[in-house]
Amino acid sequence: VADLASPAAKVAVIGLGSMGYGMASSLARAGFDVVVHDVRAEVAARFVAEHAGRSRPAKSPAEAAAGAGIIVIVVVNADQTAAVLSGEGGVLERAAPGAVAISCVTMAPERARSLARDVTARGLLFLDAPISGGAQKAQEGALTVLASGAPAAFAAAEPALNAVAAKLYRLGDEPGIGASFKIINQLLAGVHIAAACEAIALARRLGLDLAKVYEVITASAGNSWMFANRVPHILEGDYAPRSAVSIFTKDLGIVADIARSESFPAPVASAALQMFLMTAAAGMAHDDDSSVARLFAKIAGLELPERKV
Amino acid sequence: VADLASPAAKVAVIGLGSMGYGMASSLARAGFDVVVHDVRAEVAARFVAEHAGRSRPAKSPAEAAAGAGIIVIVVVNADQTAAVLSGEGGVLERAAPGAVAISCVTMAPERARSLARDVTARGLLFLDAPISGGAQKAQEGALTVLASGAPAAFAAAEPALNAVAAKLYRLGDEPGIGASFKIINQLLAGVHIAAACEAIALARRLGLDLAKVYEVITASAGNSWMFANRVPHILEGDYAPRSAVSIFTKDLGIVADIARSESFPAPVASAALQMFLMTAAAGMAHDDDSSVARLFAKIAGLELPERKV
Repeated sequence: VADLASPAAKVAVIGLGSMGYGMASSLARAGFDVVVHDVRAEVAARFVAEHAGRSRPAKSPAEAAAGAGIIVIVVVNADQTAAVLSGEGGVLERAAPGAVAISCVTMAPERARSLARDVTARGLLFLDAPISGGAQKAQEGALTVLASGAPAAFAAAEPALNAVAAKLYRLGDEPGIGASFKIINQLLAGVHIAAACEAIALARRLGLDLAKVYEVITASAGNSWMFANRVPHILEGDYAPRSAVSIFTKDLGIVADIARSESFPAPVASAALQMFLMTAAAGMAHDDDSSVARLFAKIAGLELPERKV
Repeated sequence: VADLASPAAKVAVIGLGSMGYGMASSLARAGFDVVVHDVRAEVAARFVAEHAGRSRPAKSPAEAAAGAGIIVIVVVNADQTAAVLSGEGGVLERAAPGAVAISCVTMAPERARSLARDVTARGLLFLDAPISGGAQKAQEGALTVLASGAPAAFAAAEPALNAVAAKLYRLGDEPGIGASFKIINQLLAGVHIAAACEAIALARRLGLDLAKVYEVITASAGNSWMFANRVPHILEGDYAPRSAVSIFTKDLGIVADIARSESFPAPVASAALQMFLMTAAAGMAHDDDSSVARLFAKIAGLELPERKV
């Protein structure tokens, strides 16, 4: 896909968390020359060691962006994305006109539109492209991308998107639409995790066989993608973070902010947000998001399965 | 399966709502002699007309149960089930010892255990057997049955269960376990419907293409069985009740009662219950449970799709 002689063949990836690291790996595997930046220099060094000859580290977003046709930003939140773009040593200091900035962070649609204005004012293209699927799919190049933006931004971004995504949704020509779809997904995903934990904890209190509950519910109308995916963590007593509680205090926080700014009620999402906040307050912010079940156990003196060593 | 000369070949079905009517139809199709009772005599008459030669009406639960080996009770709630069994003209007045009462209503596990004590004290068998799947699966004989009870009760009930169920879960030897599993399923199902309606309403407020939201979410981690099943009703503007709001004010009410009686918190289910109560309070108790989306529309002045005539 990529022409190694063209500027598009050089891709900058800024942010090497579990998602960014996997995406950068998929891009290197697809033949791109990948320049990586992370505030943790040792993580960038590890990536470069793993992809020798296909990658190099950059000391700043500006250095990473210099000469890159595609700039992928996979940091934690909207504020970090803004700093990566417009802060000191940011992308906009040195990115070439015509390059595309692909913004992958979950954020309010208004923030995505605002970032797009900053970027396009400097002659760059902007794609609002939140991602879904988790760390393993990022590593496999099999993410779902919920993207919106100008046709030129899509055209410029496409070679990189093809390398990281199994499913690419083109949701509209304006930035902010991709962000909105992601927010709706996160509302549901967060509620479903909290509900799964509440249901499993109550089932434990009622003395039910939890493995049987998993079998019955996943074959019944009470099932959700998240129930099927997260409850095994509880059954195994394994709360190592595949996706942390802090992701949902952030994302359901965005849902709550948007709903309030639209004068729109979101009572079920708000109840779920409170459960993630309680779980974080109880010291589990960086544990797996299925830890909401452990919060119930802690509060009510339940015994949930413990991890087999 | 059924031996028409044996008492097991005669099955009583008490309660011809959308679930009971379908189950009675499946039993008639399977070759049973089906005696039906409903407080609405005209519904029983319609059933008998549709299944001439295979069915007859009874004026009371007692009359229906007389001579039946299997008595299926599919009324609205635990109080009605108790009245059908032990009230004036109830099943226990005339049912033969050794017959099995199959209790299909969603109720608190303690109520199921209490009914079982009443029934077994009279020499009958009792199976705690809540059902799931909706009216269409009832009609097709393809329900899911979440059953618990004594092995003798299972043995006696099995011919009828085979005729009504695609999946029969044997969850334990004690009544109350089936009820508990059903309650956990209803907690999740109710939360997922309320969340789906909240998400779709917020998506509408954000100006998203709702058909596209359906496409994206059903392929993403935010999906649930209920989202996939109920959101098409909203997209079609069709709130004719496949399952009514009043079912979930009842079932999430049971969840809330059980949680409180166990001194156990259920914050997400409680938020969902309030949404169904608000929808019922707004005059939609007997409409489809996806009407929670119409509540949001009514409150916030949204336009949701209207039914094409």
